[in-house]
Amino acid sequence: MFTPDGTTVEVPPGTTLLAAATKAGVFVNSVCGGDGVCGRCRVIVRDGKVCGGSTEFFTRDEIRHGYILACQGHIASDVEVEIPPETRLAKPPERVEGEVPSLTDVSLLGRAGMQLTPLVTKTYLQLPKPSLDNNIADLQRLEQALRTATSFEKFQMGLKVTRRLPTLLRESQWQVTALSGHRGCLTEILDVEEGDTSRRNFAIAADVGTTTVVCHLVNLRNGQTLGCAAKYNSQASLGSDVIRRIIHASAKPENEAALREAIVGDLNELIDELTAKHHLGGTDVTLISAAGNTTMMHLLLGLPVENIRKEPYIGGAYRVPPLRAAEVGLKISPRGLLYCLPCVAGFVGADIVAGIHATGLSRSEKVRMLIDIGTNGEIVIGNKDFLICASASAGPAFEGAECRSGMRATRGAIDHIRLLDADRVLQYSTIGSEPPLGICGTGYVDLLSEMIRVGLVDKTGRLSVNATTERIRKSRSGESEYVVIHKQSAGNDSDIVITQGDVNNILRAKGAIFAAASVLLKAIDTTFDDLAEIMVAGAFGNFLNVEDAVFIGLLPDIDPKRMKFVGNTSIAGAKLAALSRECYEEIFQIADRTTYFELSTDPGFMDQFVSACFFPHTNIEMFPSVMAELGINKEQ
Amino acid sequence: MFTPDGTTVEVPPGTTLLAAATKAGVFVNSVCGGDGVCGRCRVIVRDGKVCGGSTEFFTRDEIRHGYILACQGHIASDVEVEIPPETRLAKPPERVEGEVPSLTDVSLLGRAGMQLTPLVTKTYLQLPKPSLDNNIADLQRLEQALRTATSFEKFQMGLKVTRRLPTLLRESQWQVTALSGHRGCLTEILDVEEGDTSRRNFAIAADVGTTTVVCHLVNLRNGQTLGCAAKYNSQASLGSDVIRRIIHASAKPENEAALREAIVGDLNELIDELTAKHHLGGTDVTLISAAGNTTMMHLLLGLPVENIRKEPYIGGAYRVPPLRAAEVGLKISPRGLLYCLPCVAGFVGADIVAGIHATGLSRSEKVRMLIDIGTNGEIVIGNKDFLICASASAGPAFEGAECRSGMRATRGAIDHIRLLDADRVLQYSTIGSEPPLGICGTGYVDLLSEMIRVGLVDKTGRLSVNATTERIRKSRSGESEYVVIHKQSAGNDSDIVITQGDVNNILRAKGAIFAAASVLLKAIDTTFDDLAEIMVAGAFGNFLNVEDAVFIGLLPDIDPKRMKFVGNTSIAGAKLAALSRECYEEIFQIADRTTYFELSTDPGFMDQFVSACFFPHTNIEMFPSVMAELGINKEQ
Repeated sequence: MFTPDGTTVEVPPGTTLLAAATKAGVFVNSVCGGDGVCGRCRVIVRDGKVCGGSTEFFTRDEIRHGYILACQGHIASDVEVEIPPETRLAKPPERVEGEVPSLTDVSLLGRAGMQLTPLVTKTYLQLPKPSLDNNIADLQRLEQALRTATSFEKFQMGLKVTRRLPTLLRESQWQVTALSGHRGCLTEILDVEEGDTSRRNFAIAADVGTTTVVCHLVNLRNGQTLGCAAKYNSQASLGSDVIRRIIHASAKPENEAALREAIVGDLNELIDELTAKHHLGGTDVTLISAAGNTTMMHLLLGLPVENIRKEPYIGGAYRVPPLRAAEVGLKISPRGLLYCLPCVAGFVGADIVAGIHATGLSRSEKVRMLIDIGTNGEIVIGNKDFLICASASAGPAFEGAECRSGMRATRGAIDHIRLLDADRVLQYSTIGSEPPLGICGTGYVDLLSEMIRVGLVDKTGRLSVNATTERIRKSRSGESEYVVIHKQSAGNDSDIVITQGDVNNILRAKGAIFAAASVLLKAIDTTFDDLAEIMVAGAFGNFLNVEDAVFIGLLPDIDPKRMKFVGNTSIAGAKLAALSRECYEEIFQIADRTTYFELSTDPGFMDQFVSACFFPHTNIEMFPSVMAELGINKEQ
Repeated sequence: MFTPDGTTVEVPPGTTLLAAATKAGVFVNSVCGGDGVCGRCRVIVRDGKVCGGSTEFFTRDEIRHGYILACQGHIASDVEVEIPPETRLAKPPERVEGEVPSLTDVSLLGRAGMQLTPLVTKTYLQLPKPSLDNNIADLQRLEQALRTATSFEKFQMGLKVTRRLPTLLRESQWQVTALSGHRGCLTEILDVEEGDTSRRNFAIAADVGTTTVVCHLVNLRNGQTLGCAAKYNSQASLGSDVIRRIIHASAKPENEAALREAIVGDLNELIDELTAKHHLGGTDVTLISAAGNTTMMHLLLGLPVENIRKEPYIGGAYRVPPLRAAEVGLKISPRGLLYCLPCVAGFVGADIVAGIHATGLSRSEKVRMLIDIGTNGEIVIGNKDFLICASASAGPAFEGAECRSGMRATRGAIDHIRLLDADRVLQYSTIGSEPPLGICGTGYVDLLSEMIRVGLVDKTGRLSVNATTERIRKSRSGESEYVVIHKQSAGNDSDIVITQGDVNNILRAKGAIFAAASVLLKAIDTTFDDLAEIMVAGAFGNFLNVEDAVFIGLLPDIDPKRMKFVGNTSIAGAKLAALSRECYEEIFQIADRTTYFELSTDPGFMDQFVSACFFPHTNIEMFPSVMAELGINKEQ
């Protein structure tokens, strides 16, 4: 039994507590995927026998209280395990964050001169009854009527539906609704339903994120978004980032299957939630349009991922044809289709391609930049004439992972903070206004910028050992750390700290993103100043304090008017694809047009990265507003 | 146990002897499909208990000897059943009869200016290894190489193959053979094999006949036919013609399944035979190209057939896309495709469309006619500008069915006969030179023509009651019959006779075919004399004595040089389709172009039919050579 929820689950002896929790649907924080190295999956054994475990992450007091790493403890009897607050993953927000309405509104279709032409359409047909003068076969009769009613030319139909057709047509008095699925130059008549069901045609647009899975329910008759649902990617307990999940998946076939089942299960849960809420039947959702990074798309489809991780970073397939959703295990209409948007490279996925489309970058006259910040930071520069893209491994620091007090942007996470001086916090806010449990990505951006301002961190990212505050101390491992919130004020009875290692992580993350953007600009002989606009995407983007992001050198020091937060552009693109065959085809053209720029082989990238691993940058003249704030003259 | 073969089979009590024989693979003659009305499935119960049965078809002596109808006798214990010779279906001929080499030779492709472009191709590819500079995904790498090596543009691949691809490419050192299946505007990469297997690519061309199933094994690398195999359609025991099989199939779903399994089983048997003989492996046969009449194609695919029989005679589908052969149960490569050629109407099937293509009728400058004689007689008239087709129900008389001593053209069948006078047979021949068991179609054509010559049958088809021969007598039912071979000379101790009813059947059959041809000609305002050529197709055609066929008025009285026997044009067309995507597409265009002429609604058909129900015809002036032979002047 897991407390405080009271959830119970039966597992064989020897199962790890983490595996049991995953099976029970109890979220347990985990970064390393069960390797016992991140120390995040702290749980308390209240009753029963658990074998194994490591003590290195716990104080003597904690060990006495039954603390153990869930991934290291093997169940040996009936046990009662408490998931302490810091280990719990909070429920995702009710409303989907990071959504920029303008991008996902169907009106965008109109603005781009596009029609509402969903990938799956339902057409009500009143067929002429056969006679001696009109004696074509049932299937050809249906095709002829559908050809007349739509713009579709060439059809195909599966054998099972063809077998049912003669009886169905006669039982329905020749009045049927045909379900037509777009398959490029062919139209598949997916199914034929009795009578007029054409008003019940819905799609799921999915953004399959490494951390969060988001689904939107869309009415294909009018383009309206009816609802959103989100949840954590259950794969998280098997590895916090794509590299760890690839390693996990490559170890043995069962692991790959487990990862696939986890994400398929998540999507089905969200589909269930949305369809139940909107009273939809089993055949009402006729398509899923899915975007995600290359690894997520591979894991969803059950494609091998191991080569993505190894130079030269090759995926199994970057573009797959429409598939029967049921073949992948997705529970929409049994005949419904899964449309996977295309990827560009091992680390430039369908989420970015969808984003390029949704932001209109690929149709723009002026050259613009899109920065999508996640575990990898992807940068695209381009317009209607060219598109170039790079991906930099930023690490999960901006997602709150791999930092001592880092956490995801969920309830209890410090998302904004102001320091009065080195010793005093002026104010901070947490998500859900709950007692602070840790720091999420935007919190770190704020915190670091403040720590620089009050002199706690120098431009090289070193915690000032000379600062006159007791908040700076040595941790048990001998590392310098700064206590942001004392445990008395924290929600989990632990000091909330930022360590020298955390600062280094964030420095490297922002350095990688900034360097990637700089190298890409240089490759096309342009500068940040030449860009008409910089769009920042990712769930991260919506909470971000621009001024602080510029201050630490994550974003360039340009006119804030030219900076735009565009939210979750991945789901926006997936939705546009579902609503318009033109958009879907255009997204594939974008993937074709996008040049992948491999940073790891560019001799300039390491220089740029090293230069960018300063606050804000080695070349501070690139950040005039920061110079002004710090009172630095050019001459200095 | 069935004797004389000694075959045994276990069945539940109550099973009919006919069903048990079908299950045991023992061929039992049956015309009515188990209704107990044709009296053909005569068997002798030697031991054990069998319940039920009717006595109307047997003499008292036969009943005493254990004769029973296999379809009426229900097994009540272990039984030993003898299948007497007249009930046995002989093995089909070793060599496939009715094959005209010129039509199925690949050289025809060359003559028609066509390339060898099989529907499924194998392409050996040496892929460039991935590198940082060439980092497209595995699937896209394969597609790119295939696009370069072939003329294919757009690809799709199933999920299972895509999942296997990354491992396969690496294990095979990037040297693989891609299997590409034609799907109209798309090319499906059906499978990818390690190394170079491109030399092992074979097709089965199948003619799914109501009575006989014929398969040819074709090497897709060079177009050569490697072998032929044929067998009786096992569905025969469930109904001798398509109408009976439709009635049987429509009675209950199990019947439809049984018919489907029967034909699928037959095809698999022939495939096994051919692949074993030519030492082919499980993945070497990559496609089946199938032609057959509309009902056979429906039964093979498991499509409902009942509406084909009912006015306005509508099939479920006349054109279906390429299907996975395994989905239908056909045992070629698990990824191989079944290409069904298109039908035109309920009684104008893919066999005719294939024949139009194979004979070049659709490309001809001059107007020609194709007559395909089977249970239905199909007539096509046309050239490159038009194609018109009609189907007349001839009945199975020319296949030896539904005539008292009729039998299929197998061993022991009288296929040619000459009478010296009304009392004496001059000579006859039987298939396989065995003692005569009955009369097949070509035998009836000869026999009737001879009986007319010696005055045994008048021009209205009446057996001459005044003939001075004891060979004419009344049967038990009071019907006039002519004893062709006395039982002393017969192989089955029965008189071989032709009854008044038999003559009427044949008269109607030839009348229907001739009338159909005449009505079609009239519909396009032309005559037999205007036709550049008349081609006679069907297995029937090869044995036919033209002079006799003209004499009885089955074929028109034109210059024999303009008459050509073209054999099995159905399998010829199926083979051309397998070898050439152009041919396959052209066959679909032919189906589109062919106008179906419904005889049953044509007011002239009945007149023509009545006129043609004379030997040779009411209007004997249409048959000048017959007039000359009979010494009739025009004035008479």
